[in-house]
Amino acid sequence: MQLTIAELARALDARFWGDGDLAVLGAAEAGQASDGQISLATTPAYAERLAAGSMAIIAEDMDPDALGLKAAILVRRPRVAMAGLTRAFDRGPEIAPGIHPTAVIDPSAEIGKDAAIGPFVVIGSGVRIGARARIAAHVTIGRDTVIGSDALFHPGAHIAHEIVIGDRVILHPGASVGADGFSFVTPEKSGVEQIRETLGERDEIREQHWTRIHSLGGVEIGDDVELGANATIDRGTIRATRVGRGTKIDNLVQIGHNCIVGEDCMLCGQVGVAGSTRIGNRVVLGGQVGVSDNIFVGDDVIAGGSTKIFTNAPAGRVLLGSPAVKMETHVEAQKNIRRLPRLYAQVAELRETVKKLMEKRPGEASEQDARSEDKG
Amino acid sequence: MQLTIAELARALDARFWGDGDLAVLGAAEAGQASDGQISLATTPAYAERLAAGSMAIIAEDMDPDALGLKAAILVRRPRVAMAGLTRAFDRGPEIAPGIHPTAVIDPSAEIGKDAAIGPFVVIGSGVRIGARARIAAHVTIGRDTVIGSDALFHPGAHIAHEIVIGDRVILHPGASVGADGFSFVTPEKSGVEQIRETLGERDEIREQHWTRIHSLGGVEIGDDVELGANATIDRGTIRATRVGRGTKIDNLVQIGHNCIVGEDCMLCGQVGVAGSTRIGNRVVLGGQVGVSDNIFVGDDVIAGGSTKIFTNAPAGRVLLGSPAVKMETHVEAQKNIRRLPRLYAQVAELRETVKKLMEKRPGEASEQDARSEDKG
Amino acid sequence: MQLTIAELARALDARFWGDGDLAVLGAAEAGQASDGQISLATTPAYAERLAAGSMAIIAEDMDPDALGLKAAILVRRPRVAMAGLTRAFDRGPEIAPGIHPTAVIDPSAEIGKDAAIGPFVVIGSGVRIGARARIAAHVTIGRDTVIGSDALFHPGAHIAHEIVIGDRVILHPGASVGADGFSFVTPEKSGVEQIRETLGERDEIREQHWTRIHSLGGVEIGDDVELGANATIDRGTIRATRVGRGTKIDNLVQIGHNCIVGEDCMLCGQVGVAGSTRIGNRVVLGGQVGVSDNIFVGDDVIAGGSTKIFTNAPAGRVLLGSPAVKMETHVEAQKNIRRLPRLYAQVAELRETVKKLMEKRPGEASEQDARSEDKG
Repeated sequence: MQLTIAELARALDARFWGDGDLAVLGAAEAGQASDGQISLATTPAYAERLAAGSMAIIAEDMDPDALGLKAAILVRRPRVAMAGLTRAFDRGPEIAPGIHPTAVIDPSAEIGKDAAIGPFVVIGSGVRIGARARIAAHVTIGRDTVIGSDALFHPGAHIAHEIVIGDRVILHPGASVGADGFSFVTPEKSGVEQIRETLGERDEIREQHWTRIHSLGGVEIGDDVELGANATIDRGTIRATRVGRGTKIDNLVQIGHNCIVGEDCMLCGQVGVAGSTRIGNRVVLGGQVGVSDNIFVGDDVIAGGSTKIFTNAPAGRVLLGSPAVKMETHVEAQKNIRRLPRLYAQVAELRETVKKLMEKRPGEASEQDARSEDKG
Repeated sequence: MQLTIAELARALDARFWGDGDLAVLGAAEAGQASDGQISLATTPAYAERLAAGSMAIIAEDMDPDALGLKAAILVRRPRVAMAGLTRAFDRGPEIAPGIHPTAVIDPSAEIGKDAAIGPFVVIGSGVRIGARARIAAHVTIGRDTVIGSDALFHPGAHIAHEIVIGDRVILHPGASVGADGFSFVTPEKSGVEQIRETLGERDEIREQHWTRIHSLGGVEIGDDVELGANATIDRGTIRATRVGRGTKIDNLVQIGHNCIVGEDCMLCGQVGVAGSTRIGNRVVLGGQVGVSDNIFVGDDVIAGGSTKIFTNAPAGRVLLGSPAVKMETHVEAQKNIRRLPRLYAQVAELRETVKKLMEKRPGEASEQDARSEDKG
Repeated sequence: MQLTIAELARALDARFWGDGDLAVLGAAEAGQASDGQISLATTPAYAERLAAGSMAIIAEDMDPDALGLKAAILVRRPRVAMAGLTRAFDRGPEIAPGIHPTAVIDPSAEIGKDAAIGPFVVIGSGVRIGARARIAAHVTIGRDTVIGSDALFHPGAHIAHEIVIGDRVILHPGASVGADGFSFVTPEKSGVEQIRETLGERDEIREQHWTRIHSLGGVEIGDDVELGANATIDRGTIRATRVGRGTKIDNLVQIGHNCIVGEDCMLCGQVGVAGSTRIGNRVVLGGQVGVSDNIFVGDDVIAGGSTKIFTNAPAGRVLLGSPAVKMETHVEAQKNIRRLPRLYAQVAELRETVKKLMEKRPGEASEQDARSEDKG
């Protein structure tokens, strides 16, 4: 792949400085670029590392001449430039155009035009896939599933039956969409049901065998969703589990059956959302966040890494801790815990002082003394 | 799939009301049913949403006539009815009867009758599989593994060599049974071994290379066990890792080598159980619970979401928090932490008051004052 | 597989006692050995269970004669002996020598000598694989990836394009190396960026669509690394994500894009390391540990299970808790929390006593009383 500086600037919607005809072959970290590679160096620290005569993407207010550059692209928001730069040079996985002869595709399935379908892919009956799908080796797609255009499914992603997936959806290796929900029932009330009702009391402990509640609902995934490696989204019981347009889901995330996740959310690595929970739009959950079942997390909630959300969270709240509380409450609580040794010392000293105060009034035995003597 | 109201009632072991010959084609949420779909509406809130002239499964004490229904099935325990209803209509994944021509099956393997084995399945030497197995695409089964009857293995599940699996076991996509245990040793005592012995002290820090302890033991999985998508159960070192009959394991759960998990347990999403730990019968671990290695969790323990169990837990205990404590202790501790700001204020006020009490007695310098002056 | 006692002793670098010509066919737990099986019994508790006339590996200072053994191997460090014993008898997975006819290998790929490549393996263009590779069914290897000698890749492991993997690397089932990093940007500053700058304040909540930052960097994995079942290591943005020589990574671990993990580390099950974090050498992270993005964890750090590391950790530190603190600080803090009920009682009693002290001085209304009256 090769672009000129001028072409790359255009792709980044930015202006360039210097020789616009220079060829750019790829990107490298500042100071590590070999011939033809461009570096992103939008902070002074990175700019310092640039070799004289090199090419760089720099901040709008930097001086490419003073940095000794041969050519530069000047950008306003560096991370946005990074998106454009990496998109320009990403060749992605290698999936040959057309349908690989080893793929097993049911004759009733409809594959859109310009598809690239890799070896050992299995596509069930009644499946419909939009145009320009890129489906890598070992992907399976169950019967009657419908997939939009421009799908990119990496090796070994598994999509079950009766799933609906929008346009431009990316599934990473081993991602699972539409496995059965984890839903069971005991013939009589189970220990967990009792605990939930009584907050901890059980009248007796009984045998309990789990009977499966099957998952008839599928999964509906909106446009521009991305699902990380080995992440899992379970199918709903009666209606579909849903993930809204534009939501990004990282590796090893688990979304339980019946959940409804809104639009433009970001769920970081190893997040777990238990069944039947609703998550609003633009919610950001940091790595290893947990969300209980059957609750509601409002729009624009942000939860820091490892936050455990047990109860409904109102829109816009910034959460931390386990159990999750407002960020400032959590910070305050942590401070209070750290200060406890001092508090213990202060109280011990107070007790000593007050004891002396009491002692100094002869003939007046305090209640405290009396109680101490009772114990003796 | 099609049942009459009368047939479905019989399947649910319940009585029906109204026209028993009506055809039921599927299920939908209350108020969303189209023609031929039945709704489960066992609470007043759901019952209100039912359209007049529709079919519903309702609670025993509801009046189908007053609800304007055409037909109804009256049930005692709604979640149990849900199990029967969804089972009746679940067509499951599509796996054609017989053995797909692309499957690679060692000639020495024995496959029971009425098997359905999908494309690209790989079955090793000496494997024995019971009757009516349904094994989807891309499943691998290692040499000498023995599997009971009525197996349902979803795409891409991986079963290693020398594993024993009971009847009616379900493996979801990407589940791994029998990968090597995570067990290593350093030639000399490692930092971790020192820390465990001394609770935090290390005499010196040394180089440490990890030597692998191989896993000769397999895995034994009882009847009616279910293992979620991308969940993992490692093989034992000398003897097998074991999961008892009827235990249900959710997506992305990790069970370490040598663990013994009892019967009828429920391990929710992303639970992790470290090596050589024993878990009793009917234990329920909520999502993201962690259990340390080499400990014992008694029968009927219930641990809420994100509980981290570091030490043995006696039978019947209800646990919460990290480190796990009795539920009521955890609730109390959280309350105590929340009340700390008030406690800090009270102690500050007390100190002020006591200081004044001391000051008001002329000629008597308190120890406290003396110490304060020392600092001045 | 069969060894004599003398041969096994030599393999363990230990001396034997008794009949060195006895055949050892396998290993079993003490007291469970059948004919030809040897037991490891290096503690008195295990030694007691040994059957008379059996074979055992025992501790150096034990007396095989008194234990009634027929043959024994005497070892200094039992876990090291366990490594040797299990290695001697591990036949591993079954992968036939040569390249299975169903494998799809690009003609430009170079496969080293004595390879064993299983069914349905897919190897892309320009891939180079060293000698003696054992690659099980359904493994995929993307274009231009380079792999050292003696690879052991279990079924369904996925290696993306442009990855570099050292010698003797083991990938367990479903492991993913080189999926795209989880890196997105919004056109304007996102809510998360604001929160990070202001520690909790957002001026307003806006629409935010996530634009993908593509991952051009690959992954570099050193010699002797092991990656667990369904674990994931994402590719870097511009430069490679790196895992150093000898590091062992357990099941379901997530390593984010751009991370640099040192040598001889041990990352236990379900650990998550967020993007761009650096981890030193010989670091041990217990199960479910979380590490924030863009921080540094020094050499020889040990973090107990479920520790959540939010900030830089200096070399050699032993960490516990969430947020992670020094082990002794955590233990102290937990104790302080447990003792709070007593502290609350003491303060309540003090307040009562001080109130009485104040009351006993007629005509002197304390500030405290005055304030109480203000509220009335």
